[in-house]
Amino acid sequence: MSASTTKSPSSSPIQFTFGLWTVGWAAQDPFGRATREALDPVESVHRLAELGASGVTFHDDDLVPFGSSASARDAVIERFRAALAETGMVVPMVTTDTFSHPVFKDGALTSNDRGVRRLALRKVLRQVELGASLGAKTFVMWGGREGAEYDGAKDYKAAYDRFAEGVDSVAAFIKERGYGMRIALEPKPNEPRGDILLPTVGHALGFIATLEHGDIVGLNPEVGHEQMAGLNFTAGIAQALWQGKLFHIDLNGQHGPRFDQDLVFGHGDLLSAFFTVDLLENGFPGGGPRYEGPRHFDYKPSRTEDVEGVWVSAAANMETYSLLAERARSFRADPEVQEAMQSSGLSELAQPTLAEGESPAALLETAGDLGPEIADESERLAARGYGHVHLNQLALRHVLGAA
Amino acid sequence: MSASTTKSPSSSPIQFTFGLWTVGWAAQDPFGRATREALDPVESVHRLAELGASGVTFHDDDLVPFGSSASARDAVIERFRAALAETGMVVPMVTTDTFSHPVFKDGALTSNDRGVRRLALRKVLRQVELGASLGAKTFVMWGGREGAEYDGAKDYKAAYDRFAEGVDSVAAFIKERGYGMRIALEPKPNEPRGDILLPTVGHALGFIATLEHGDIVGLNPEVGHEQMAGLNFTAGIAQALWQGKLFHIDLNGQHGPRFDQDLVFGHGDLLSAFFTVDLLENGFPGGGPRYEGPRHFDYKPSRTEDVEGVWVSAAANMETYSLLAERARSFRADPEVQEAMQSSGLSELAQPTLAEGESPAALLETAGDLGPEIADESERLAARGYGHVHLNQLALRHVLGAA
Amino acid sequence: MSASTTKSPSSSPIQFTFGLWTVGWAAQDPFGRATREALDPVESVHRLAELGASGVTFHDDDLVPFGSSASARDAVIERFRAALAETGMVVPMVTTDTFSHPVFKDGALTSNDRGVRRLALRKVLRQVELGASLGAKTFVMWGGREGAEYDGAKDYKAAYDRFAEGVDSVAAFIKERGYGMRIALEPKPNEPRGDILLPTVGHALGFIATLEHGDIVGLNPEVGHEQMAGLNFTAGIAQALWQGKLFHIDLNGQHGPRFDQDLVFGHGDLLSAFFTVDLLENGFPGGGPRYEGPRHFDYKPSRTEDVEGVWVSAAANMETYSLLAERARSFRADPEVQEAMQSSGLSELAQPTLAEGESPAALLETAGDLGPEIADESERLAARGYGHVHLNQLALRHVLGAA
Amino acid sequence: MSASTTKSPSSSPIQFTFGLWTVGWAAQDPFGRATREALDPVESVHRLAELGASGVTFHDDDLVPFGSSASARDAVIERFRAALAETGMVVPMVTTDTFSHPVFKDGALTSNDRGVRRLALRKVLRQVELGASLGAKTFVMWGGREGAEYDGAKDYKAAYDRFAEGVDSVAAFIKERGYGMRIALEPKPNEPRGDILLPTVGHALGFIATLEHGDIVGLNPEVGHEQMAGLNFTAGIAQALWQGKLFHIDLNGQHGPRFDQDLVFGHGDLLSAFFTVDLLENGFPGGGPRYEGPRHFDYKPSRTEDVEGVWVSAAANMETYSLLAERARSFRADPEVQEAMQSSGLSELAQPTLAEGESPAALLETAGDLGPEIADESERLAARGYGHVHLNQLALRHVLGAA
Repeated sequence: MSASTTKSPSSSPIQFTFGLWTVGWAAQDPFGRATREALDPVESVHRLAELGASGVTFHDDDLVPFGSSASARDAVIERFRAALAETGMVVPMVTTDTFSHPVFKDGALTSNDRGVRRLALRKVLRQVELGASLGAKTFVMWGGREGAEYDGAKDYKAAYDRFAEGVDSVAAFIKERGYGMRIALEPKPNEPRGDILLPTVGHALGFIATLEHGDIVGLNPEVGHEQMAGLNFTAGIAQALWQGKLFHIDLNGQHGPRFDQDLVFGHGDLLSAFFTVDLLENGFPGGGPRYEGPRHFDYKPSRTEDVEGVWVSAAANMETYSLLAERARSFRADPEVQEAMQSSGLSELAQPTLAEGESPAALLETAGDLGPEIADESERLAARGYGHVHLNQLALRHVLGAA
Repeated sequence: MSASTTKSPSSSPIQFTFGLWTVGWAAQDPFGRATREALDPVESVHRLAELGASGVTFHDDDLVPFGSSASARDAVIERFRAALAETGMVVPMVTTDTFSHPVFKDGALTSNDRGVRRLALRKVLRQVELGASLGAKTFVMWGGREGAEYDGAKDYKAAYDRFAEGVDSVAAFIKERGYGMRIALEPKPNEPRGDILLPTVGHALGFIATLEHGDIVGLNPEVGHEQMAGLNFTAGIAQALWQGKLFHIDLNGQHGPRFDQDLVFGHGDLLSAFFTVDLLENGFPGGGPRYEGPRHFDYKPSRTEDVEGVWVSAAANMETYSLLAERARSFRADPEVQEAMQSSGLSELAQPTLAEGESPAALLETAGDLGPEIADESERLAARGYGHVHLNQLALRHVLGAA
Repeated sequence: MSASTTKSPSSSPIQFTFGLWTVGWAAQDPFGRATREALDPVESVHRLAELGASGVTFHDDDLVPFGSSASARDAVIERFRAALAETGMVVPMVTTDTFSHPVFKDGALTSNDRGVRRLALRKVLRQVELGASLGAKTFVMWGGREGAEYDGAKDYKAAYDRFAEGVDSVAAFIKERGYGMRIALEPKPNEPRGDILLPTVGHALGFIATLEHGDIVGLNPEVGHEQMAGLNFTAGIAQALWQGKLFHIDLNGQHGPRFDQDLVFGHGDLLSAFFTVDLLENGFPGGGPRYEGPRHFDYKPSRTEDVEGVWVSAAANMETYSLLAERARSFRADPEVQEAMQSSGLSELAQPTLAEGESPAALLETAGDLGPEIADESERLAARGYGHVHLNQLALRHVLGAA
Repeated sequence: MSASTTKSPSSSPIQFTFGLWTVGWAAQDPFGRATREALDPVESVHRLAELGASGVTFHDDDLVPFGSSASARDAVIERFRAALAETGMVVPMVTTDTFSHPVFKDGALTSNDRGVRRLALRKVLRQVELGASLGAKTFVMWGGREGAEYDGAKDYKAAYDRFAEGVDSVAAFIKERGYGMRIALEPKPNEPRGDILLPTVGHALGFIATLEHGDIVGLNPEVGHEQMAGLNFTAGIAQALWQGKLFHIDLNGQHGPRFDQDLVFGHGDLLSAFFTVDLLENGFPGGGPRYEGPRHFDYKPSRTEDVEGVWVSAAANMETYSLLAERARSFRADPEVQEAMQSSGLSELAQPTLAEGESPAALLETAGDLGPEIADESERLAARGYGHVHLNQLALRHVLGAA
């Protein structure tokens, strides 16, 4: 078995990126030690480039070991830049590790300890600087330790205040420095904390609305994180996109509410992955805002795999995405699908409910009261069959390559 | 067994309210027919008043059968008003049934069928009028059918557009009529639809931020609905409260991700119920916005119960809430708890992370770089034990009446 | 849209069966009234036959309304037999409705009320008689109401005793009458009860081991029921098959822990559906017991569908199964898959761990102690990469029709 | 804050035991490094004894580092024995670590690699020897790595065969050596593997029925593991107890389907914990088999805690259990509860459904056919209210110390 046995997606124009921590995961888990050696980030850049990726992303500590001296740090960064230059790989996004070190055990930007909060903010800001110097356009913030195991452990108001202060501070810094970066918050419901603040795409959207610098703050939703709450990922990113807040995306696989699995994209809920790709590649059926960022994989090569299996698994993400993208294109182009969409009323939903200039009060006047007439009208309208199962079966046929 | 065997909470000043559909549930479920007779709403008003409740709430069709003639409708309402007057019960909230009738099978305000959307909007607006005439201050909107079983069945952008149009239309109508009402959206992740739009408190908060009339739109979170997504209810309502959007609340019990159980409040996750009551009764530990609305129960008497059991179960909700409120008061007043809160750093979290006037850039300058010094500082700060387990055990003792 | 637009699986030799209650579901759910008319069972027999099914199954009350007079009952059954004869459809399984009527609200065979238990047993036995007369070989028992909302509501020991008494009584009756039928228990974790007894395939397997007549008692696992507990369906039926207890199967779709969705087979977790079909059609990779029963669909046509959509959805189940069966065959036949299976060690797992005649004590003696040697040996063995991700990606390619 | 501030349960006669790995957990998790130092097992023995525990349990590697020389091993064990002797602590159970080392990444007794399986079996057998020498009566086997992420990665038949071979080998060894030990299998649905074989109490009960030496094989259910599958823990252990298979128990806390939290007992679902304690302390309401083993805690002190917090958390487990045991006693002794149990029909459920000597066929003859009479009888029986909510509210009052 080798990576070369997977089909190359290299001819695809889709921009695929990977976190250094994904292929670099040494496979230590809560019940076991690492099964693989750490990877040299420079090797990862080269291997991912060969497999067809166009960029990499990283936490500060993925590249520069925490506590490195300035000179050691500079050397590491210089060598990394050289690898980027050699391969043509870009760094469209960076993020900060505010969860691994014991100091963050009660949170980073929302730790009950102010000293920890200040330290966390410094660590974040330094990574903003590094990211900017590498041309990153997105700064992801995953508050993995912002939360609690016990409701009594936090003054929630204070916690949301501090979280907002932290994110606004980073945003203000970005603006002040003129970095042209945008922040993408990454929600997750739990793990490693019992409950994490901003547990879903929705909570983050609500939170952003309260920020002073919310204009440059959006989302980095992760497939598995939403599915850990049993939520529909495609519907979630659709809301973010509709609100103009889908700044970045983390693709992977998960089997519903349980620990964070970080499977290869498509190795979890395959039909859901299809509709996610369909939205990312083809947009809403009736048009509207489009996702323009990279297709970023945040997955983990299974702990059973050796280093060769790591590269095979990396390639699998891109292959699956590319295959689903092809199937999504054929789905949208299929006249039977188009007819079924029409029959299901998808385009009708784009029509405003009220006529132009019609007020709610006017609707009431025209339409009359709630008497027996509305009951009759309801019966008539209720007779319609929407054909949603048929449309879904057409999608399934396209997914199976059977259309 | 009779309702009188439960301890009376009637001396409590807490304002308890019930939906007519709660005690009135005839216990039909997806696998079985009704086990109880329908209740006369007027009887429910009297019985709930006797048990110590201060108000009732209802869907339009709970009170006036759908399709009633104007005269029949008027008669029903008049008789209901008389019962309110006799008992002193109030109607602080009303809501609309946009889910029972087959016409809403693909949604109400977001049905793919425009005719259905217009009909739904009329039904909602008529109930706004009735609610206003009864003095209701809150208008709850639960979009139980706004969603889909299949991602292909909806153009999500159009669906969010129509949902926003619908809610804004209702809000505009309220303002135009000068009703002084506020709208409270009720999120739910699934059931009856495969996935429901605005599945959590967070998604609704995000959505509200996009509305034209979002100033009078907030939330009506339900304990069980958030817990169906495995989310922490107290943390969720805390975010809503922090954002000034906790307009109403639905209290009940649930056992995590599964069908919507609507158990008696406290009969699900009891510790979580304690912290919810603690927040509602005592506010955030360090102060801040308070919930001022009624304590509203949206539960179902189990299908095994006869009508006497219905009233026993209604009383159980109020008893449990009252007992937890007492325990929450003793918890906050306990010096050992106060000391443990201090030691855990709850009040420290209220302190801004940055000093007054300190900019992020200034923090970086003062604090220096990411070298070995920050690693040392991290180790020092990491040594702190937060004592969160101790504090939780103190809470548990108070819950058990053992403190 | 019409059923004829779905691809016909009629040429397939696979035996597909449907419950009369599946296509016949009138789409009443916990929050809404029926959206479709009841179907005439005779029409269902004809339509399903036309679509390519080979048999139907039913609850007593699906065919004969509960409480019918003997003559009414006979007439219904005669007409049904005629439809079977005309179409060549068979009735390989029947089951009893011990959940719809209010009398079963606290259970049927485990109701706390002995009168209810006796009535339930009579109802079950009468359906055994009818099933036998129609040639059914399997008698399914789903204890949908056997359970509780509250641990205090049942004496669990007594409940398991009564459940065992009930199932053994039915089994004894079958043997005494010489019906040659086998009983298949259908597990489900919850809904309609808060928690149901025998919540998973495993619990039923454990329970069967205690029965007097356990030799003719096995399982009827349902895809969605296991997935409601977040369990792997294929692994579950594999254990049942390994224990010689996979007597029947209910195929459908579900999205993890939530209400019982009963989607079309494959419209939930598609990859899992593939591996289920692979096991049913191709058996264990290294051979062993095979499932010989019908491929039975226990699904519900979505509530959004009209009657034409009902038949489209029925056809979709068979089409999806047939397509996955083709892909499973190509998966097993693919030399690259076979090589990957070999490399992953699938056939090696069939080899006993101990050599022939080797005792555990002998293993210890030969292999030596736990000293540094075992640590070295562990390191050597740990170096192996299993290639499981590669193998899964090969499966995914076959599923997508891309291999 | 200190451990002494928690109320001492030392006067209690209840036998509490702890795994060395519980208090000894250094708090490394999937997203962060250890926050505490490793504890010396000898210190743990002393501290736990002081707090009121009566025994400890351990994995082989918890006590003796893997790969230790024979002499190092002997020294460690001798020192440990001395601590036991000094404190009077016992070792009622031991278990083997077949999950931490990378060699077990694809399983131990069911690894696809036969060499790994043989190594695992040796490691298990050696721990059986050590446990026996320390007087352990129970040998727990948690197959944490027995499972897969992908259905294609295992030949399930071969996997169940090897699992059975492994457990039977251990059982045969125990019998041959005359150790008088019993094996207790510990089920878990997932984590660290995507899906684990024998995911629930039920699956293990079913599996045991297939074993050659199943007579000495039973269960060690863990609160959180069943709750990770959304299952009712009390109902699960009740089935195990009813089948004579509740050999040991792992008490802790969990918040439903998510990662394995291992909270302090009672810090998860408190009402469920009450009914678990009620069953363990008071048995089934109508009598029957009793659990006779130790009350064993398998929890983790939260990662936020320092070493002082570790001991506070250990004490919290015992305090909560003791408080719930008191409340369970008062619950059973309360005449109002007894009357409510009677009214709910708990004792009636102990009555066989059939009369003595009555056959199913005889029941049918006596009771008549399914005509209109059975419908009338059903209506009559359906009128009964079971009062389950009332009984649950009585339990809740006792839990709250308010009865």
